[in-house]
Amino acid sequence: MKIDVTKCAELLKEHDNILILTHAHPDGDTLGSGFALCRALMEIGKICAVINADEIPKKYSYLFDDIVPIKFKPDYVVAVDVATINLLGELESEYPHIDLCIDHHSTNTEYADNLLLEDVPANCQIMYDVINALGVEINAGIANCLYTGLTTDTGCFRYDSTTAQTYRVAAELIEKGAENGRINRIMFETKTKTYARLERLALESMRFYDNERVAVITITQEMYRLTGSNEQETEAIAPLTRQIEGVEVGITIREKADGTCKASLRTHNMINAAELAKCFGGGGHAQAAACRFDCDVKEARRQLVEKCGELLNDGNNLHQ
Amino acid sequence: MKIDVTKCAELLKEHDNILILTHAHPDGDTLGSGFALCRALMEIGKICAVINADEIPKKYSYLFDDIVPIKFKPDYVVAVDVATINLLGELESEYPHIDLCIDHHSTNTEYADNLLLEDVPANCQIMYDVINALGVEINAGIANCLYTGLTTDTGCFRYDSTTAQTYRVAAELIEKGAENGRINRIMFETKTKTYARLERLALESMRFYDNERVAVITITQEMYRLTGSNEQETEAIAPLTRQIEGVEVGITIREKADGTCKASLRTHNMINAAELAKCFGGGGHAQAAACRFDCDVKEARRQLVEKCGELLNDGNNLHQ
Repeated sequence: MKIDVTKCAELLKEHDNILILTHAHPDGDTLGSGFALCRALMEIGKICAVINADEIPKKYSYLFDDIVPIKFKPDYVVAVDVATINLLGELESEYPHIDLCIDHHSTNTEYADNLLLEDVPANCQIMYDVINALGVEINAGIANCLYTGLTTDTGCFRYDSTTAQTYRVAAELIEKGAENGRINRIMFETKTKTYARLERLALESMRFYDNERVAVITITQEMYRLTGSNEQETEAIAPLTRQIEGVEVGITIREKADGTCKASLRTHNMINAAELAKCFGGGGHAQAAACRFDCDVKEARRQLVEKCGELLNDGNNLHQ
Repeated sequence: MKIDVTKCAELLKEHDNILILTHAHPDGDTLGSGFALCRALMEIGKICAVINADEIPKKYSYLFDDIVPIKFKPDYVVAVDVATINLLGELESEYPHIDLCIDHHSTNTEYADNLLLEDVPANCQIMYDVINALGVEINAGIANCLYTGLTTDTGCFRYDSTTAQTYRVAAELIEKGAENGRINRIMFETKTKTYARLERLALESMRFYDNERVAVITITQEMYRLTGSNEQETEAIAPLTRQIEGVEVGITIREKADGTCKASLRTHNMINAAELAKCFGGGGHAQAAACRFDCDVKEARRQLVEKCGELLNDGNNLHQ
């Protein structure tokens, strides 16, 4: 059932022992949404917790390191920033019934009572409204969580999708104590040595196709071995492809341990990344999407480059 | 004389034939301030123009390409985002008398009627208040200029200095028509292919010293030949060294055509970059400085790494 912010807040108030699920390979927006909601619910006396299928990267620890974890039998299960249930990873089988979903992805499959606002660039921007609707005063801890989601999902307020309201919410959060400078330094200005090595190899691997309008980075398991890096650190690689002048589609293909692979797609206006991802069973946003392949990286690259060629040439014909 | 925003607007209203000077080697904040003010003054019927000692980089052309340039004898001269008159470059001798200065630098020397607000991260944030005080409705052209200054001087709303008010002004500007996505793409997301190639070689050249607390990038003439890039494109390289976790001193050494070289130094808190540069006859700020060498890049690197070792080990002793 589709619900609005007011109804969402009512449902949360009616329940207790609330378990919040975040998506696998967690990012700043799912974690920021989850821990902001958890903190807000704790403020109104609820028992609650946030869990994730994967290990949470250390850089996010400030979101939760003052929250004492508690074990309880959940009566109400909420998924935040989770478009489809398979994105829960290993939590999917453990929690087959989700009661409430708060999300901003256009690919959302409405698997629960659904607060979905597609035009909002970060789920934390929706969560800001939910927390206000709960009647909770936003404190510094909540502000840090919400600011983290806003800044990470908008590339530090950089992407097209960022609206006036995103900036206005950021202003409010800073006034409530969000440490914007520190958070942005952690998220955007600090590279681990292992990541720096991986980034170098990733840039070396970049190849161009279709009159240099398609750029492809390939990250292999061998690169993780050589650099000491791992898949968790690859998040910052994908945007590098699209930054190059003339590139319309930036593709980052990551080889998994089992030899299959995953592709992150970044596009400008000529190609819809979600549409491209959909051709391979994936999904996402108009300028940032992802899909999986059962084949190896070379074959995935061949298929993606071929499809990009078709779409770009279609697009050109339309515009001419 | 120190003046406030209201007085500044009064002075501007009292005059006509207003010439606006921006600082040499212009950036987004001086140009954004200048052209925003020029557009606002034109709205209230003033004759005015913006000039600069240097050529304005092409990427800023959207700030002014719809303004028809006019020649006139200036009756009132305004400097924007210009801390000291020598920063005007060749305009300094041409305009020995400046009537009004609107600036945000703590190093401002008060050489005119002075609207100075030091805690504001971008001069365009002050200009937003001035334009409102002039009673001019902010249109899309003005909004684009002001947004450009805000975003470039805050590293896209990233730096510590960015305040809640900066975000709030950005929100207002977007509502007035500022094309935030496009501007950020131009300013932060566009690498030329030649730069992208140079960056790759630069990262490949990175070497670590002194327990990986010193990172050195070396850019040779051969790299320019291989990539089609040039020295003008190296500006964005220097910050890359300091981003790596654990690095206290990031050094970028650029070989000149005559075989001598120049080093850009970036540091965190442990080492003062200006002090390090001073050891080699250079200078700059506490975290960003530069110096020249008459020797080749290898010898410059040897000397710099040796000096860093001394300073870091001194520093360690002091802190232990």
